[in-house]
Amino acid sequence: MTDAPSPALETALAYHRAWTGHDFDRAMTYVADDIVCEAPAGPIRGARAFRDFMEPFSHILTDSRVIAAFGDETTALMMYDTTTLPVASAPGAECLTVGDGVITHLRIIFNQAPFIAAEQARRTPTGG
Amino acid sequence: MTDAPSPALETALAYHRAWTGHDFDRAMTYVADDIVCEAPAGPIRGARAFRDFMEPFSHILTDSRVIAAFGDETTALMMYDTTTLPVASAPGAECLTVGDGVITHLRIIFNQAPFIAAEQARRTPTGG
Repeated sequence: MTDAPSPALETALAYHRAWTGHDFDRAMTYVADDIVCEAPAGPIRGARAFRDFMEPFSHILTDSRVIAAFGDETTALMMYDTTTLPVASAPGAECLTVGDGVITHLRIIFNQAPFIAAEQARRTPTGG
Repeated sequence: MTDAPSPALETALAYHRAWTGHDFDRAMTYVADDIVCEAPAGPIRGARAFRDFMEPFSHILTDSRVIAAFGDETTALMMYDTTTLPVASAPGAECLTVGDGVITHLRIIFNQAPFIAAEQARRTPTGG
């Protein structure tokens, strides 16, 4: 991390602590009403749709750990690992644009494949 | 990015420019012999295995763009987008640990799902 404080990183980490702490109401205080989120399945526009996308993930989250986090005036970049109910290690990376203390753009990268595989396994009877 | 030069980021960007420029011999000059790479499918140990993992991806790469990149003395964090032959937008994120000018540890996050889907589509006759 840089020695100089990064306003964008402070907001990003506050958002991160809130949602990984299962306080999504607080997490949303750091999210702009007109946020655009570039997610693996495509763009998500607006705070309501963003919450519908991210909050269910926070419900299956059992542990998380920041791997690295940097930022400057307007941009924060984070990588973290998560433990979730269906997938033991599901790391993610986010690039966040911050203005006036709220996140206006968030690009998130994670691997959908193990979640798809877990869902397929759940739907497939094991027989017997 | 920080104003102060980051030795780790310099190495990470040099590696990135080389492999996205299809010069994997040069890319490997920035990789430690005993590199450990944490990839979506699990850990990859050693420069030979690392090259076997990353070089085929460079062959299907048609374009790339750095989204954000930060670093300090020993750690670099990057996010980038790529265009590949099977998948139009395949962004990735890497957290790299650098010592003595070479990458000793690299955690890479990308979404395997569209590559799996493209491979399944390739193997499935379209009929007619």
